[in-house]
Amino acid sequence: MPAALLSIGTELTRGELVNTNASWIADRLTAFGLEVEVIEAIPDDRAVIVDTLRRLSTRHRVVIVTGGLGPTTDDLTSACAAEAAGVPLERHEPSLEAIRRRFASFGREMGPSNAKQADFPRGCEILPNPIGTAPGFKLQLGGAMLFFTPGVPVEMHRMFEEQIVPHIAPLATNDAAQVHLKTFGAGESKIGEMLEGLEGEFPGVTLGYRAHFPEIEVKVFARGKHRSEAQALADAAARAVRGRLGDLVYGEGREETFAASMSRVLRKGKLTLSIAESCTGGLVGSMITALPGSSEFLLFDGVVYSNAAKVQVLGVDEEILRAHGAVSAECAQAMVEGVKRLTGSDLAVAITGIAGPTGGSDHKPVGLVYFAVGGPHETIVKERQLSGDRQRVQTFAAWYALKLVLDMARDLVETSAPPPVSIAP
Amino acid sequence: MPAALLSIGTELTRGELVNTNASWIADRLTAFGLEVEVIEAIPDDRAVIVDTLRRLSTRHRVVIVTGGLGPTTDDLTSACAAEAAGVPLERHEPSLEAIRRRFASFGREMGPSNAKQADFPRGCEILPNPIGTAPGFKLQLGGAMLFFTPGVPVEMHRMFEEQIVPHIAPLATNDAAQVHLKTFGAGESKIGEMLEGLEGEFPGVTLGYRAHFPEIEVKVFARGKHRSEAQALADAAARAVRGRLGDLVYGEGREETFAASMSRVLRKGKLTLSIAESCTGGLVGSMITALPGSSEFLLFDGVVYSNAAKVQVLGVDEEILRAHGAVSAECAQAMVEGVKRLTGSDLAVAITGIAGPTGGSDHKPVGLVYFAVGGPHETIVKERQLSGDRQRVQTFAAWYALKLVLDMARDLVETSAPPPVSIAP
Repeated sequence: MPAALLSIGTELTRGELVNTNASWIADRLTAFGLEVEVIEAIPDDRAVIVDTLRRLSTRHRVVIVTGGLGPTTDDLTSACAAEAAGVPLERHEPSLEAIRRRFASFGREMGPSNAKQADFPRGCEILPNPIGTAPGFKLQLGGAMLFFTPGVPVEMHRMFEEQIVPHIAPLATNDAAQVHLKTFGAGESKIGEMLEGLEGEFPGVTLGYRAHFPEIEVKVFARGKHRSEAQALADAAARAVRGRLGDLVYGEGREETFAASMSRVLRKGKLTLSIAESCTGGLVGSMITALPGSSEFLLFDGVVYSNAAKVQVLGVDEEILRAHGAVSAECAQAMVEGVKRLTGSDLAVAITGIAGPTGGSDHKPVGLVYFAVGGPHETIVKERQLSGDRQRVQTFAAWYALKLVLDMARDLVETSAPPPVSIAP
Repeated sequence: MPAALLSIGTELTRGELVNTNASWIADRLTAFGLEVEVIEAIPDDRAVIVDTLRRLSTRHRVVIVTGGLGPTTDDLTSACAAEAAGVPLERHEPSLEAIRRRFASFGREMGPSNAKQADFPRGCEILPNPIGTAPGFKLQLGGAMLFFTPGVPVEMHRMFEEQIVPHIAPLATNDAAQVHLKTFGAGESKIGEMLEGLEGEFPGVTLGYRAHFPEIEVKVFARGKHRSEAQALADAAARAVRGRLGDLVYGEGREETFAASMSRVLRKGKLTLSIAESCTGGLVGSMITALPGSSEFLLFDGVVYSNAAKVQVLGVDEEILRAHGAVSAECAQAMVEGVKRLTGSDLAVAITGIAGPTGGSDHKPVGLVYFAVGGPHETIVKERQLSGDRQRVQTFAAWYALKLVLDMARDLVETSAPPPVSIAP
């Protein structure tokens, strides 16, 4: 049941954009047991688009097409789909009305160019877009089902799950299952070494790795005689992976995030948090506040970028800055104590370091970062020498700070739990 | 002179890996004026590979193939290239010797599986790999030049520059040029309408749009008789685009960012900045501090997520919170005044709103955000009703806050400039 993916857009064939849509869809189809036999990207060129749609529809059962549904003159997908199918374009009044309403909801009037987004090949099935102006559509061409969605990832993801999955789920072989384990704290080659030989212990299982700095996702993919056998196999292998990787695994599931896993522990322990960050410049706070409901536990994040702010806002002793500098274990400790005093939070974390590319010295090189995490019973200070460019230093430092909070919160939640009650049989 | 790119590997068609090789090569070929007409990725499947190589070689002048040159059984590229060309594989002794030496240099012995990396289609030209075990090769197939390299990005990049560029440089048309204009403040359809008809005024120019929420990039692509004519045409059309879009254009160049354009104005005016953000949770600070050297002007960013932090850190009057709530024009104004008082910065900006998905009411719906920007002469407060999910509300609000700072900083820098000196002729 081979599937094909087609992404339309000159920004792809000119290398201006990395095609993350294709890998996202391929991953989802693979999870359904549908094999992707080709991924193509082509420019906004009418002849190329028509030709490619015809060729793919003769060779594949499912073709998923993204991009080229926008309002501008280089958006040609609907017209080309109609030409490939040998049918005219037809205006779909309910879609036009939906687009008009969407604009009205922003207090704006629909422009004339948006009207073409309501033109579809005759006989297609329209796939509504709940969060954008461009609807998609489903078209039968020869023996192939073609699905068209916008290229905007957030719209495509939503439409894939809501509009396309119901059509392809019945085609799924359902003999495959996948478990996603998210890890932080070791590189891909180290993780690979730790898991060496594990596939041999679980016939039918293959391990895949996806590096999205600084996390590594381990994908445990299993095939079985039917879905439940595959799922049981994937689950067993995932337990073995967790056994080998220990604390490096922070969560499970493709949508899991590091901040979410930390926030669950804080909520469970009813613990509040405050942050003082310097070289990470708001990254720790924005990772946490990307989560809905983070206001329940996050009281304050002070991005104390200047020395003056460290003194004025957090009450860091000027003598510490003079004697040890802002990038020092002493300053990290004073920052964490200061922010805890200011807000009265249960936990606090502080980061101060040199993100680079300038600002380093022989004594304190770029990438040197101090962390302090404070709780009800203790304050822990850590020094790390990080490598890579500014963005990597900032990103790793922000994750590492959250990891320190997570570890301390786990200890508090576990040790504060009441002792298990034994029930007489 | 259309080129094609082919990436071979089941890790791509299963979505385990994003195809960054393709965008890298496409960008390099575009710079040479070679148009990429298709990018394909296919699995490690012999029939599919042979078929695809034959099809691409009949349609394209240059085909660049990455992946499948490794030592394992699923590395099939050389054998498939030989089959597509109708020639046998032949062992190349100097390559075998080079692979053996490479292993010896790590103190290891070459394994038997690596020997197949010295097997090439008869008649090809071998492309040495200076930093890996797998050499590449160049093969003429019909009218097409096919280049094969390993899929490891660092090896591919080096081999592309050293081994492939000398072959394709003579084919380069060098008749194209591109200008990238970055905009914020209007959607893609609005921008498209504002630029309608502009292509007609500049024959040889095509406009492309790339939406990366909340910015829209306008790409002005021009072809001319030679490079300098194309560049002059692209520049002239870009000036016309700027004329139509006005202040919506914040900068030029593919690497330009909104925070960088704002920071240049602040540095030029030697203006310092402090921030008080609530619903954006550190996003404004992290956008700015992603820039090297931002410590020169950013003094402090207070993420005052709780009401207590607004009072304790910024000195917001509790009466304001009681009477108007934290999401109010009054609170935004008190926040901006508080953070300016705390740090003594020249400029300050404050954001308070409801990012959602919960926390809204009839009176104050999700997406309602208040902004205040304060400078030496005035404080301006704005109310905006934003739409979309939490991430979109936060992202748009952070950009809008930076836009307010940018506009106020521009006014200060321009009005504080000394009057022009007239020189007597």
